[in-house]
Amino acid sequence: MSARMNNAEVRLMTPLGWDISTVVSELREVREKSLADRQRTKQPPRLPSRKILIGILDRLSTALFPNRLGTSDLTDDSVDYFVGHTLDATLRDLLEQVRRELQFSSGQTPIRDRDREQAIEITQTFATRLPEIRAVLDSDIRAAYEGDPAAGSVDEVLVCYPGVTAIIYHRLAHALHQLGVPLIARIIAEIAHSATGIDIHPGADIGGSFFIDHGTGVVIGETAIIGQRVRLYQAVTLGAKRFPAHENGALVKGNARHPIIEDDVVIYAGATILGRVTIGRGSMIGGNVWLTRSVPPGSSISQAQVRSEIFEGGSGI
Amino acid sequence: MSARMNNAEVRLMTPLGWDISTVVSELREVREKSLADRQRTKQPPRLPSRKILIGILDRLSTALFPNRLGTSDLTDDSVDYFVGHTLDATLRDLLEQVRRELQFSSGQTPIRDRDREQAIEITQTFATRLPEIRAVLDSDIRAAYEGDPAAGSVDEVLVCYPGVTAIIYHRLAHALHQLGVPLIARIIAEIAHSATGIDIHPGADIGGSFFIDHGTGVVIGETAIIGQRVRLYQAVTLGAKRFPAHENGALVKGNARHPIIEDDVVIYAGATILGRVTIGRGSMIGGNVWLTRSVPPGSSISQAQVRSEIFEGGSGI
Amino acid sequence: MSARMNNAEVRLMTPLGWDISTVVSELREVREKSLADRQRTKQPPRLPSRKILIGILDRLSTALFPNRLGTSDLTDDSVDYFVGHTLDATLRDLLEQVRRELQFSSGQTPIRDRDREQAIEITQTFATRLPEIRAVLDSDIRAAYEGDPAAGSVDEVLVCYPGVTAIIYHRLAHALHQLGVPLIARIIAEIAHSATGIDIHPGADIGGSFFIDHGTGVVIGETAIIGQRVRLYQAVTLGAKRFPAHENGALVKGNARHPIIEDDVVIYAGATILGRVTIGRGSMIGGNVWLTRSVPPGSSISQAQVRSEIFEGGSGI
Amino acid sequence: MSARMNNAEVRLMTPLGWDISTVVSELREVREKSLADRQRTKQPPRLPSRKILIGILDRLSTALFPNRLGTSDLTDDSVDYFVGHTLDATLRDLLEQVRRELQFSSGQTPIRDRDREQAIEITQTFATRLPEIRAVLDSDIRAAYEGDPAAGSVDEVLVCYPGVTAIIYHRLAHALHQLGVPLIARIIAEIAHSATGIDIHPGADIGGSFFIDHGTGVVIGETAIIGQRVRLYQAVTLGAKRFPAHENGALVKGNARHPIIEDDVVIYAGATILGRVTIGRGSMIGGNVWLTRSVPPGSSISQAQVRSEIFEGGSGI
Amino acid sequence: MSARMNNAEVRLMTPLGWDISTVVSELREVREKSLADRQRTKQPPRLPSRKILIGILDRLSTALFPNRLGTSDLTDDSVDYFVGHTLDATLRDLLEQVRRELQFSSGQTPIRDRDREQAIEITQTFATRLPEIRAVLDSDIRAAYEGDPAAGSVDEVLVCYPGVTAIIYHRLAHALHQLGVPLIARIIAEIAHSATGIDIHPGADIGGSFFIDHGTGVVIGETAIIGQRVRLYQAVTLGAKRFPAHENGALVKGNARHPIIEDDVVIYAGATILGRVTIGRGSMIGGNVWLTRSVPPGSSISQAQVRSEIFEGGSGI
Amino acid sequence: MSARMNNAEVRLMTPLGWDISTVVSELREVREKSLADRQRTKQPPRLPSRKILIGILDRLSTALFPNRLGTSDLTDDSVDYFVGHTLDATLRDLLEQVRRELQFSSGQTPIRDRDREQAIEITQTFATRLPEIRAVLDSDIRAAYEGDPAAGSVDEVLVCYPGVTAIIYHRLAHALHQLGVPLIARIIAEIAHSATGIDIHPGADIGGSFFIDHGTGVVIGETAIIGQRVRLYQAVTLGAKRFPAHENGALVKGNARHPIIEDDVVIYAGATILGRVTIGRGSMIGGNVWLTRSVPPGSSISQAQVRSEIFEGGSGI
Repeated sequence: MSARMNNAEVRLMTPLGWDISTVVSELREVREKSLADRQRTKQPPRLPSRKILIGILDRLSTALFPNRLGTSDLTDDSVDYFVGHTLDATLRDLLEQVRRELQFSSGQTPIRDRDREQAIEITQTFATRLPEIRAVLDSDIRAAYEGDPAAGSVDEVLVCYPGVTAIIYHRLAHALHQLGVPLIARIIAEIAHSATGIDIHPGADIGGSFFIDHGTGVVIGETAIIGQRVRLYQAVTLGAKRFPAHENGALVKGNARHPIIEDDVVIYAGATILGRVTIGRGSMIGGNVWLTRSVPPGSSISQAQVRSEIFEGGSGI
Repeated sequence: MSARMNNAEVRLMTPLGWDISTVVSELREVREKSLADRQRTKQPPRLPSRKILIGILDRLSTALFPNRLGTSDLTDDSVDYFVGHTLDATLRDLLEQVRRELQFSSGQTPIRDRDREQAIEITQTFATRLPEIRAVLDSDIRAAYEGDPAAGSVDEVLVCYPGVTAIIYHRLAHALHQLGVPLIARIIAEIAHSATGIDIHPGADIGGSFFIDHGTGVVIGETAIIGQRVRLYQAVTLGAKRFPAHENGALVKGNARHPIIEDDVVIYAGATILGRVTIGRGSMIGGNVWLTRSVPPGSSISQAQVRSEIFEGGSGI
Repeated sequence: MSARMNNAEVRLMTPLGWDISTVVSELREVREKSLADRQRTKQPPRLPSRKILIGILDRLSTALFPNRLGTSDLTDDSVDYFVGHTLDATLRDLLEQVRRELQFSSGQTPIRDRDREQAIEITQTFATRLPEIRAVLDSDIRAAYEGDPAAGSVDEVLVCYPGVTAIIYHRLAHALHQLGVPLIARIIAEIAHSATGIDIHPGADIGGSFFIDHGTGVVIGETAIIGQRVRLYQAVTLGAKRFPAHENGALVKGNARHPIIEDDVVIYAGATILGRVTIGRGSMIGGNVWLTRSVPPGSSISQAQVRSEIFEGGSGI
Repeated sequence: MSARMNNAEVRLMTPLGWDISTVVSELREVREKSLADRQRTKQPPRLPSRKILIGILDRLSTALFPNRLGTSDLTDDSVDYFVGHTLDATLRDLLEQVRRELQFSSGQTPIRDRDREQAIEITQTFATRLPEIRAVLDSDIRAAYEGDPAAGSVDEVLVCYPGVTAIIYHRLAHALHQLGVPLIARIIAEIAHSATGIDIHPGADIGGSFFIDHGTGVVIGETAIIGQRVRLYQAVTLGAKRFPAHENGALVKGNARHPIIEDDVVIYAGATILGRVTIGRGSMIGGNVWLTRSVPPGSSISQAQVRSEIFEGGSGI
Repeated sequence: MSARMNNAEVRLMTPLGWDISTVVSELREVREKSLADRQRTKQPPRLPSRKILIGILDRLSTALFPNRLGTSDLTDDSVDYFVGHTLDATLRDLLEQVRRELQFSSGQTPIRDRDREQAIEITQTFATRLPEIRAVLDSDIRAAYEGDPAAGSVDEVLVCYPGVTAIIYHRLAHALHQLGVPLIARIIAEIAHSATGIDIHPGADIGGSFFIDHGTGVVIGETAIIGQRVRLYQAVTLGAKRFPAHENGALVKGNARHPIIEDDVVIYAGATILGRVTIGRGSMIGGNVWLTRSVPPGSSISQAQVRSEIFEGGSGI
Repeated sequence: MSARMNNAEVRLMTPLGWDISTVVSELREVREKSLADRQRTKQPPRLPSRKILIGILDRLSTALFPNRLGTSDLTDDSVDYFVGHTLDATLRDLLEQVRRELQFSSGQTPIRDRDREQAIEITQTFATRLPEIRAVLDSDIRAAYEGDPAAGSVDEVLVCYPGVTAIIYHRLAHALHQLGVPLIARIIAEIAHSATGIDIHPGADIGGSFFIDHGTGVVIGETAIIGQRVRLYQAVTLGAKRFPAHENGALVKGNARHPIIEDDVVIYAGATILGRVTIGRGSMIGGNVWLTRSVPPGSSISQAQVRSEIFEGGSGI
């Protein structure tokens, strides 16, 4: 056996052992440098956990729709026990996440009494809003059912449609955003984004009977305002114009920068609407339309011309 | 210690307790109103379960591709035991889901004998179709391998490509759709949509050697018909025109409303083809093309003009 | 009881039993035909496992960011134990996957000594690169924080943003791609693609302080080169021209066919840049722009004209 | 490389493959012979599942003692939701097991309506007995606390003592035994036996305030009757005389054959009491005593003489 | 269909629904009565959790014996990372359990600062004792290996022998008992008791090189003192005399009431030694011996006479 | 806030941090000393894993009794797929454990070819013995059913009786013991011991139709030989005399030192039989009998005299 093979065998017996400690200490240096750059303490308060929030959202959904998303075979009597217990346990877990966010934003260790009090208040207020959230979700589900001729029943819509999943998560995230825990709200929005490809900022204000069909690639910005009975298709963007300097000469922050969509508007796939413009009530925005100005109620916008032609031997992309 | 802090401590000890019962009863009211609106009984039959179908699809995939997706180290002898046992256990689970859908659509409780019989028949027929499904999937995988110069081996394609995952799920969903369980088929399609960003309606009829590259944002409608050896790229839409009234004056439903793509067509990223148009055999549709009319075989369609220009100091979005 | 019901009951007792063996043997035939078509042996070496790689990536992420993605409550002392142990266990698992890929590409059974040696070397080299990967990821996270006015803190960005998840996975995949395990690299890229809708080929060479906002639908090709401080939005494609025959008359393979994006470029949502073109330093590419040629430094590209108009009673898609 | 090593490698690649099918078919023969010997059909009704019953018992325990064995942090309000939901879900699972046992004893497939009705009735009656079971368990726990000077609190006793676990399981099993599902009752008894080493037949009739200390090796027979406030130590046997022929000349079956222990009796470790004898109220039975006759109230029984002596150089066992 | 069957079906649809609420409220009454009897508040502090302690003990064992009970394949370098991380995470969990016990015994809600401080101190002190615990466990394992000719290696003994498991758990429980958390110590002892049938009170003081063979039924009392190199067999009891009144006329509590076993004593299966007697150094106590008095060093105690004879046609038990 | 509280808070923030590294290095010292004492290398081959063997045994049991312990609802067709697949996967896992034991006993790293070959041979031979093991287990189960008037069916016995569990595990362990993997055999025996309280050395040679009732505390030694149709009750010991020097003046090792029990013997609870004695065919050994000599066929042994009397005011233990 050659010396080299011998060596290989030896290494095989102690795989990877020799440089772990170097890697570990170099990683420490990078971490410390990173912390120093941000003037952060070494052991910051914990962030809310995405993994735990996934579980919380899952259980909140079953508490909202116990017969459809919850345990099967619930009887009329037992459903309240199910809902009550599920809410009780889930809100307790949510309370802990709310505490973490408050402590994280205040940057105080250990947690202050007022953060603790506030966490309880936020969670309780959130709980009291659940019935109205369920009521408006009922309108969304009905809108999906009525808006898609392929939908066989209201229940199917609840179980199948990514647009329905996205709006359930959004309405919960939006309530939390309003109550003062924007980070938790954002994490929830990203959970929905990852599952459905629909990216709705939790700050967006969306009316009842809202429906997104297909949905992949939809982006709705933070200050968007959407009325009643609005319908969107896949890849619609309700975005911001990035350079307000062109209008007021100064980079303003946190201002209203996304579209207002009035009641009964339909926006087809791939349309892009940018800036604080208003799409008037009952308008229809065609597929792939690019729009950066307001349109009056009842408008019907489509692309200016057919964009394709036949070329003999024409090239592809 | 102030009265207020005292209060905080008390609340801390009974977190969230006080209003759960109000929330629970309000949620009950909303649920009952929702059921009344839909004339639904309080305890409807169970829907098929998305969570269980995810498991079923996972195991069906391993039964179809035991050496690549199944347990590693299967020998030539043991592979049949693996496939037989996996199919047996999985089909049993599928049978239960099929029963649920049949009972749900018939709205009968308890389950009728004919639903039970039909569930068995559907599941058995589905089982007998698996070998042909595997055979056509082999053609899809080969198409992916041959269509992407970056693909190193047929096996890599099976393990890595979202387009391959999407077509495996679609072919299973399509068979179930044809056999009379459209809800299960739809749930399977949404499982694939969530994992890959590719949204294929289970009704779509897709020929062999089909390949979608990248895939995010692809939408293929219910009545689309796709021939042999077709290739699509990301964000391609094969959709319906939403307002048939503009052509025939009446809102028709369930009719053939999505494109027919003949053999050997390639459609590049972002192209949108709408309505019951026919893309003739061997055509090439360029990126971002918008097409609402039929094109003859051999066409090569691309955008009419370069759409961008340089502006001095021009603005962004 | 009728004969027919009797029969149903009998079938109920032996559900699905009768044709499993036929299905099993037909599946065997299809498998054998498939193997024969590819001249493959019946029991090929195992591929790397996507499921195991998901776990490996998850733990590598916690080793890189122990305070944020790892176990909570790590103290300054204990963090090195955590990082050391996590790395040790994870690299051992990675080593096994690397071995599988090497054996798979060499097609040799049992594994050769040189594959084993090489697997150890690749894994060790990969380990030594982790500190620099973490350092450049710090620059990416800072870029995300600074590039999005909505971002509240550097930590939020790490936990919430799909673009950050995508770049973490890409930098790990890219290192493995460079070290000679392209299949593992590709699987990692697809894991990120499925979770975020962002599809970056592991071969792409991406500079520091890189940020993708929203991200769904982004595609970055294998030979793309991206400089420092580049920012992309959703649905941006950095793709290849598919028919190089239009330029040099021959179908070349594996050549540099994707764009070069120089430092400090911003590319807005939906822009498509195709071919080996260069986007000069500091350029801004507007939303939905379609670009197949190079632009000089400092360019600002936007669409040529407003593409939509108001039609009275105009139709939708 | 020698032929032999070559052979070894080949075998390594197809491990264990060659004789599985022989083993499988031989096992089938043995099964079929075994079924034939017992005149049993090939596919008998399912037995209740030990694994599922373990879960049921676990959750019934938490419903009985929600603050101590259930979810922590239950508030006074939420505890009823917890108990209600836990009972609802657990009884549903128990109902299925009861159905299985009834179907198994009737030997009928498919399940008869009257078995189904009876299963519901048994489960419901069992549910109504839970409050009284909890009440008598409170007396047992108090007895354990008072009977052991080492016990620090009533709660400790509930969490720590195997004798308490055994009596909780016994009281539940006994109720089910009385209601007509002796097999489920027996499985529960064996679950407790395995966990505690205490073997109480579910038929045994045991009064309140019962306490077993240490407990390993205790055996209590089917027809034993135990009064109020009885205390046992480890390895006590309350068994049957095996050969009734010595008394009445005939082998009688199912008759009362285990001891009657009247109120306030204490039986020390290792004592063996056999046959239908009566230990009078308030008696004390000493350690390792062997007793096959009745003793009057107030008796104090101990061993006749010291059983050990010192021997010079004496041997061991 | 008869009215009766109809009724059965109806009940089947609402299984168990009707009386859950009655059961729930009756259970509430029993709970409240139970609490009132004990003057306990409705929501007492949480007890340490048996389930969590099982996990803690499991991981402490792997930290003590990383190469044998821990992750396989640890290299000489990585073992310290493993041990450090495992200890860090496990001690953190233990700290929480220690806090619970201190809060439970003080009966204070919310937790007091001094309980918190004390919990940290106890856990830290416990950590510092682990090396000496490991060292004495090495002597126990060696004693098992040397004491049983059937033992093939020291490692086998560690993995197989219930007596070794019992002493590992005891030494950890004993340290915690000494440090002031007797309830946690007791729960640990019961975990070992359930797994091995060996019941050692955590208060028992046991010297090094201790070995119990087989073990089922062994009971060692709270104040027992055992010297170096003692060996016990199954079913040995080192217990208390229950009625000290026979000696000093008063029921004393917490006093030394269990045997002292000096160095190098062997006690064979089934022997029972009761009371504060001393078994002198080097003695041998034979099987089934009953001993309630001290014996001098070097004694060899066995049973006084053969206890069995042959009877013609003699009866059984 | 006082300095002391301040300090407490500080410590709370860095819990347990300060002395982990000391503990870790002290544990390393103890480990190294322990290894040095045994002249063992730092990184010994892995032992077979108890956790994995538990799973293997569980699955082997379901392969042996698929209708009773395996997946429910197996049809006559599908049962062979189940058995074949379960055996295939389980034997593969067992093979790995067998390899570990062979490598461990040979002390060679890396594993030698002959150990690998031998592992395959042992596992395959073991597989071929499974049908005969199942056949003799059928006789054991029948013996349990016939031997206990309380047993309602053969199936109940299989599911409920700890004595049946013990003999299933023993027969598998004994086969492995004979095939040359005594450590695995021993671990399996201890798994059964922990679950049932019955301790049978895997070397013991036990004939068919064997039944142990209740079982807690039974110990059967390595060289015991038990004939056909033998029945034991709880706490029976078939042990060795520990000091052969008293009879033949020399300490012999590994010799036949446990009893021979001939056919049709019954041994009642608590009986102790020690040494290489023979209990003649058809004998009956009474409860608690202590026996160290052979008895002829047909003997009926019981205790010499009643061992208890009534004392006025007599004391307890």
